[in-house]
Amino acid sequence: METIRSFGGRPDVHRPRHGYPVIHGVFDESPSLPTVTVYNHLDVQPASRDDGVWRTDPFVLRREGDRYFGRGTTDDKGPALSALFGVRTARESGVPVNLRVLWEFEEEVGSAGFEEVIRTAASKLRTGSILVSDTVWLTRTQPACPTSLRGFQGFRFVLQTGEEDRHSGDVGGPGRNPIAELMGLVCKIHDPDTGRVKIPGFYADVVRPSRRELEDFRRSGFSLRAYKKDFRLRSLRTNDPLEVMKRMWALPTFEVHGVAGGYAGPGLKSIVPGRAEVFASCRLVANQTPEKIRRLVTSFVKKHAPDVEVHAEGGAFPYRGVTTGPLADAVREAMRFGFGRKPVFVRDGGTIGAVVTMEKVLRCPVLFLGVSLPEHGYHAPNENFDWGQASRGMAAFARYFELVAGMGVRR
Amino acid sequence: METIRSFGGRPDVHRPRHGYPVIHGVFDESPSLPTVTVYNHLDVQPASRDDGVWRTDPFVLRREGDRYFGRGTTDDKGPALSALFGVRTARESGVPVNLRVLWEFEEEVGSAGFEEVIRTAASKLRTGSILVSDTVWLTRTQPACPTSLRGFQGFRFVLQTGEEDRHSGDVGGPGRNPIAELMGLVCKIHDPDTGRVKIPGFYADVVRPSRRELEDFRRSGFSLRAYKKDFRLRSLRTNDPLEVMKRMWALPTFEVHGVAGGYAGPGLKSIVPGRAEVFASCRLVANQTPEKIRRLVTSFVKKHAPDVEVHAEGGAFPYRGVTTGPLADAVREAMRFGFGRKPVFVRDGGTIGAVVTMEKVLRCPVLFLGVSLPEHGYHAPNENFDWGQASRGMAAFARYFELVAGMGVRR
Repeated sequence: METIRSFGGRPDVHRPRHGYPVIHGVFDESPSLPTVTVYNHLDVQPASRDDGVWRTDPFVLRREGDRYFGRGTTDDKGPALSALFGVRTARESGVPVNLRVLWEFEEEVGSAGFEEVIRTAASKLRTGSILVSDTVWLTRTQPACPTSLRGFQGFRFVLQTGEEDRHSGDVGGPGRNPIAELMGLVCKIHDPDTGRVKIPGFYADVVRPSRRELEDFRRSGFSLRAYKKDFRLRSLRTNDPLEVMKRMWALPTFEVHGVAGGYAGPGLKSIVPGRAEVFASCRLVANQTPEKIRRLVTSFVKKHAPDVEVHAEGGAFPYRGVTTGPLADAVREAMRFGFGRKPVFVRDGGTIGAVVTMEKVLRCPVLFLGVSLPEHGYHAPNENFDWGQASRGMAAFARYFELVAGMGVRR
Repeated sequence: METIRSFGGRPDVHRPRHGYPVIHGVFDESPSLPTVTVYNHLDVQPASRDDGVWRTDPFVLRREGDRYFGRGTTDDKGPALSALFGVRTARESGVPVNLRVLWEFEEEVGSAGFEEVIRTAASKLRTGSILVSDTVWLTRTQPACPTSLRGFQGFRFVLQTGEEDRHSGDVGGPGRNPIAELMGLVCKIHDPDTGRVKIPGFYADVVRPSRRELEDFRRSGFSLRAYKKDFRLRSLRTNDPLEVMKRMWALPTFEVHGVAGGYAGPGLKSIVPGRAEVFASCRLVANQTPEKIRRLVTSFVKKHAPDVEVHAEGGAFPYRGVTTGPLADAVREAMRFGFGRKPVFVRDGGTIGAVVTMEKVLRCPVLFLGVSLPEHGYHAPNENFDWGQASRGMAAFARYFELVAGMGVRR
């Protein structure tokens, strides 16, 4: 609040019934000017000195040379401050644009109250576009902005063939094994080796990345070796880097998360389980919808395994941002201005419901301008942010505001 | 001990280094006469009055009419006492045979020390044949004796594709999912719907039941409805009763017991597991051996899923008892004498390592003469034994001893 005031803004606090408040910082207000809002979150991941891996107190900001150490420095307070300095620069230069910041305080724990705030305060939050600054480049030498996010649809498959676990000496053979049958179902749904989903129509609505996007993927600085190292993966389904990026960012998945039922403790308990449950989910890409995927999976299961219950869990739309047009070009030009090199437009394989909520409720495009580097250590010990990214980020934000100002009000 | 003495026997106690003692009751000793040993166990299942389902104290023997209630009455103290009375009858009639009883005290908890006792005391336990009395008929109107038991080979399949569970937004698509891949492996090993094992050679050594055995299966009193009710199964892989008996008694299996790894708790955690483990086992039938099945499964996995580790767990031979010849005929005649009807020879789908141990170490055939009925409630609340089965059982045992005496000493 005080920070926003000290930068010349008016902070508005919006509280959901459950969850943490959202702070809206309003700088200027003129109906004749275009409006742009920068989204950041100020809550942080947990951290403990006891881990033994933090060299300094994670909750005391410590500067070493041009580097700032502490939990939240790069995720996402540093970028939030860079944006705020960009706001100040733009205002001091008299850039004709209404500037806003939108700060969330529960991004790391699921954004429970965020949608409610956006819906309730929609008229006050009205904006021409949103810039999310909460993403990481793939390499320090190549600025990168995600443009799209995957959606999500969870599933629980339940099969009960007996009232309880039975001794396999008694029922093994004639008795149905619900874990094994669910395994069979999972193998009918997808090929466990390639990940390819076998349900007819599953890929029908998938929008393939454009040639230009694929060109950007190639130039993104993605490294197979770094990817495997970062996520501590021993091997992958493919070793073609472009194929990895396509599968991670631009293709839907079917993933098994766990199996309940039977016995998997120490020793071996030779039972035929009475009941089993498989937890799975699909990541979705544009233009798939959670509803249609739910429908496809459910009717496929009903057909191939009629007595398996399907429970749909959660559900989030994929987000496909703009990669062409004036706003996308403004992001490209702003980053070139700030960092000396045009960014590549990549994607993100995760799901951020808040982005889709902002787009749908506030009816405006959401773009990304992230300034964090892999070596900053998102969610890791010794998280840091550096002055180079901060100062260049400020310039990029200021330039972006100037470019948006030049577009005038879209009616 | 006192019981054996009061029946005129000499009790010998054999103690393993770990586990409970085995009591050997010796009645008469004449090298010129044949020797027969009856095996029972005197330990019982747990029981609690707090269950609310026991109508009387499970550990106080209570008689109601001709029925005796209490834990262990039918499993296996009642049959042990019937055998002992059969011994007394035979001795009082001067039947020329050396009689022995062998009482185990840890059958219900895995017979940890039994094999050691049998091996160590083999010379003292020497006998021409063994009669196990610890089995249940399928229906009260048709005496039944199992002749064969299934063997066992446990397996753990382990696959690790990453050092830890990762977010499926980050690695879902390119990342290998070890649970899904193990599911694929399980489906390559067997058909989860039918249970049919697909590993070449798996069924090669299976000895099919003889026509006479199948005829006995048909007449055994097996009821599909009772079977499903007893084991509380909602449905089976087949509804053909003979097919159910064949699969339960005379065919090997591959059974999945549980899956470890990933997340299967409340909610849905959208991870790609780093590591997964599948617990499974095969029930074996004669003439399969645990060694060969281990070898077949291991090399099949190495071929189809080279980075899956296979760990063999346990291993027990199947037991195929005699269904023809003088001893088998003696069992048939003894039961006809006692119960008024010749028994059918069926099998048991479970594994009793002790039986194979006795056969192999003491080098003698092991036959079964069980006198318990389904309504006695093996392992169930209100376990009971009835005077009809007890008294007819005594007559059957006595007649069996007489028939064995008539065979003389086999050298």
